[in-house]
Amino acid sequence: MADTPILHGYYRSSASYRVRAVLNLKGLGYADAFHHLRKGEQRAPGYLALNPQGLLPALETEGDVLTQSLAICEYLDEVYPTPPLLPADPVARAKVRAFALAIACDIHPVQNLKVLARLRALGLDEAQVSLWAATTIEDGLDACDALIAGGRGPYCFGDTVTLADVFLVPQLYNARRFGVALRWPRLVAAEAACLAMPAFRAAAPDAQPDAE
Amino acid sequence: MADTPILHGYYRSSASYRVRAVLNLKGLGYADAFHHLRKGEQRAPGYLALNPQGLLPALETEGDVLTQSLAICEYLDEVYPTPPLLPADPVARAKVRAFALAIACDIHPVQNLKVLARLRALGLDEAQVSLWAATTIEDGLDACDALIAGGRGPYCFGDTVTLADVFLVPQLYNARRFGVALRWPRLVAAEAACLAMPAFRAAAPDAQPDAE
Repeated sequence: MADTPILHGYYRSSASYRVRAVLNLKGLGYADAFHHLRKGEQRAPGYLALNPQGLLPALETEGDVLTQSLAICEYLDEVYPTPPLLPADPVARAKVRAFALAIACDIHPVQNLKVLARLRALGLDEAQVSLWAATTIEDGLDACDALIAGGRGPYCFGDTVTLADVFLVPQLYNARRFGVALRWPRLVAAEAACLAMPAFRAAAPDAQPDAE
Repeated sequence: MADTPILHGYYRSSASYRVRAVLNLKGLGYADAFHHLRKGEQRAPGYLALNPQGLLPALETEGDVLTQSLAICEYLDEVYPTPPLLPADPVARAKVRAFALAIACDIHPVQNLKVLARLRALGLDEAQVSLWAATTIEDGLDACDALIAGGRGPYCFGDTVTLADVFLVPQLYNARRFGVALRWPRLVAAEAACLAMPAFRAAAPDAQPDAE
């Protein structure tokens, strides 16, 4: 990269975790800009000027600002193709993307901080809010598990890390935070294979300078 | 296509609407298989065997089943590249994808039937449920509007239809269903430009054989 990209993130933001993993897998250096989600720093005017969605992450690179973790991951995979994080075959690519989207669309946004805060504001108690998050994750990961049933490991789609793994690992981190029992041996094995790699370990929440 | 693909959808499913628009834009014929969302037909065993997520749409093609509307759209754009629905430049592609994902991740899954049913089951009344959906859509479309601020029309990203438009048009259809006042002239203009095209008009919910 001509300039060093700046990743706007937060240690426990699972969407930021995805982008950190891809940057590391591609061997790309980056600078961190942290925004504390629980303190609402992602809604500060300075950050909203960069990303009007007020969500993390955003990647400043080549004089531009990219948002939405999957769009950033696809960008990095297109511009820095080694190692590739999508297969070459169109059907296989669609299956990897579908797995990532099953997490990015149907699990994470339904259990993120913003939605849980809205549930609390509607008068739900902590037990109800936690059950909402856990049920969302359990149903979603049941589907993810089915999406890779019959396939080979150790990763989600065979012997190569793909964007499916990049999205799975942060979601399993979230699952543990919400006390979800991990009843999916195949998913947990893919996570273990990923966490054996320095790229994933360095991207983990607890390895970030802003970890609490 | 060697075989005629089968699109599993529902007339008012906005994710199905996206895929119908892309199939039409590419000039691809397809057969419909309808599953009535409000009757829960997407949870029938026969459909779950095709798509374990129990969500619409799914596209049966080339002996395989593709799921997740964005993954299907990307597949169709890769295999049938004319007309292209993503720009050639990686940064421009990332911006189009980010707009589509701002809808696919941060609006639609938070206001879909499944989530609204969960809110009702928690005891929220219809006014609260409708406000939840409307607020989700308003906040999300505010962000989408900002993502294309300063750009040229008539479409979201200039003079060519992209996946951004394909995701916008069904979301504006949903916005109207929930009584949202459309305060985004730029988005409404992009929608009008799309609906001037037969490909979008033929994809609209009211044009489907299962429309009620």
